[in-house]
Amino acid sequence: MSEKKLALIATKGTLDWAYPPFILASTAAALGYNVTVFFTFYGLQLLRKDLNLKVSPLGNPGMPMPMGMDKWFPVLGTAIPGMETMMTGMMKQKIKKKGVASVQELRDLCIEAEVKMIGCQMTIDLFDMKSEDFIDEIELGGASTFFEFAGDADVQLLI
Amino acid sequence: MSEKKLALIATKGTLDWAYPPFILASTAAALGYNVTVFFTFYGLQLLRKDLNLKVSPLGNPGMPMPMGMDKWFPVLGTAIPGMETMMTGMMKQKIKKKGVASVQELRDLCIEAEVKMIGCQMTIDLFDMKSEDFIDEIELGGASTFFEFAGDADVQLLI
Amino acid sequence: MSEKKLALIATKGTLDWAYPPFILASTAAALGYNVTVFFTFYGLQLLRKDLNLKVSPLGNPGMPMPMGMDKWFPVLGTAIPGMETMMTGMMKQKIKKKGVASVQELRDLCIEAEVKMIGCQMTIDLFDMKSEDFIDEIELGGASTFFEFAGDADVQLLI
Repeated sequence: MSEKKLALIATKGTLDWAYPPFILASTAAALGYNVTVFFTFYGLQLLRKDLNLKVSPLGNPGMPMPMGMDKWFPVLGTAIPGMETMMTGMMKQKIKKKGVASVQELRDLCIEAEVKMIGCQMTIDLFDMKSEDFIDEIELGGASTFFEFAGDADVQLLI
Repeated sequence: MSEKKLALIATKGTLDWAYPPFILASTAAALGYNVTVFFTFYGLQLLRKDLNLKVSPLGNPGMPMPMGMDKWFPVLGTAIPGMETMMTGMMKQKIKKKGVASVQELRDLCIEAEVKMIGCQMTIDLFDMKSEDFIDEIELGGASTFFEFAGDADVQLLI
Repeated sequence: MSEKKLALIATKGTLDWAYPPFILASTAAALGYNVTVFFTFYGLQLLRKDLNLKVSPLGNPGMPMPMGMDKWFPVLGTAIPGMETMMTGMMKQKIKKKGVASVQELRDLCIEAEVKMIGCQMTIDLFDMKSEDFIDEIELGGASTFFEFAGDADVQLLI
């Protein structure tokens, strides 16, 4: 029986959306999947050496707010200066308190589990990013690189 | 010929993004697919007994606004207090007027069609949610539970 | 050996999120894939004859901001009137300067490469859109139309 394959595309660069690709990739790797993740668009932020991800409650009324806060700051409250920093701090604290791994730890876990990570060259060029800002464990490629492995993968997901 | 299988991950918890998972799941079930949906992150909101979903125009300039409203409230307008509630009401009204099923009705349809729904235990723990707030028809599980059925599914999508 | 098949669902209607479906579709078509894209929800905006897409930094702290701008306009800055228009202009300019194709050009490329595009009839009805506002090269259909080709596709992704 051949090994199962998982192909992910990670397109988002916020603290909350950093979890799905790294959780899915590390879980699948632990289950014996051969995993490749293509990081493109805002998802490139997840490959930075210096991870500085933020979470925003703006435009996401699906986010559970700390007790009663949504009563005090209805909608506009989520746009007041400092709210993004505060929510980011609260989410990080909650994650730590609950014993959930940090994004950094999950990424390290993926590297140890030999998850293949590919950064999108076009995005790097478009936003004038510097390749030395990214971790060393990645390769660079384009959408055609993605299809090389996705075409034969058992599971493909875009996050 | 064996039955087709659909595996969905529902990660969003707003009124508008509640439609894709329930529409895709109920349609596939009607076509004879065996369907499993894994609800995680903000998607857990879709499993609450008391559905109280909202829609936000914030950060989504792709949302069609009621006639001329975008001329009167350019960008910032979408952040004024009450706008989220108003847009939620307008969307619910429009959906009803057009004869489109409500999220509640679509969810009931999925239950009747024996769509299997799994709530993410880690999300419940992380956000201190109470399992009694969720409908009885669900099971709880983790990312590895998702791969159990996604690995053999014909179609997998993350919403 | 039979041809590979790609099935995409395009659900977003902003300038930035217009790129992934058209880039993935045109790249796959160039690699010899048979490609079908189902445009639904806000994704219908991508099929308009008169493309007028915008990008919003609101609620997306993962978006790289122009030099230092995030220091001057922390969070609320992204909500000031005119910011959306400014960011849209800056992104279009950057894309042009970098020699990346416009959304219009990528869509034309997809049409030339015989990518099959399907507009969601339910969305059109729901938002009172006019079918004459859309390009002629599309067909109309529903979620069941999507499963007709997705059920046998090698790669399926929801954007």
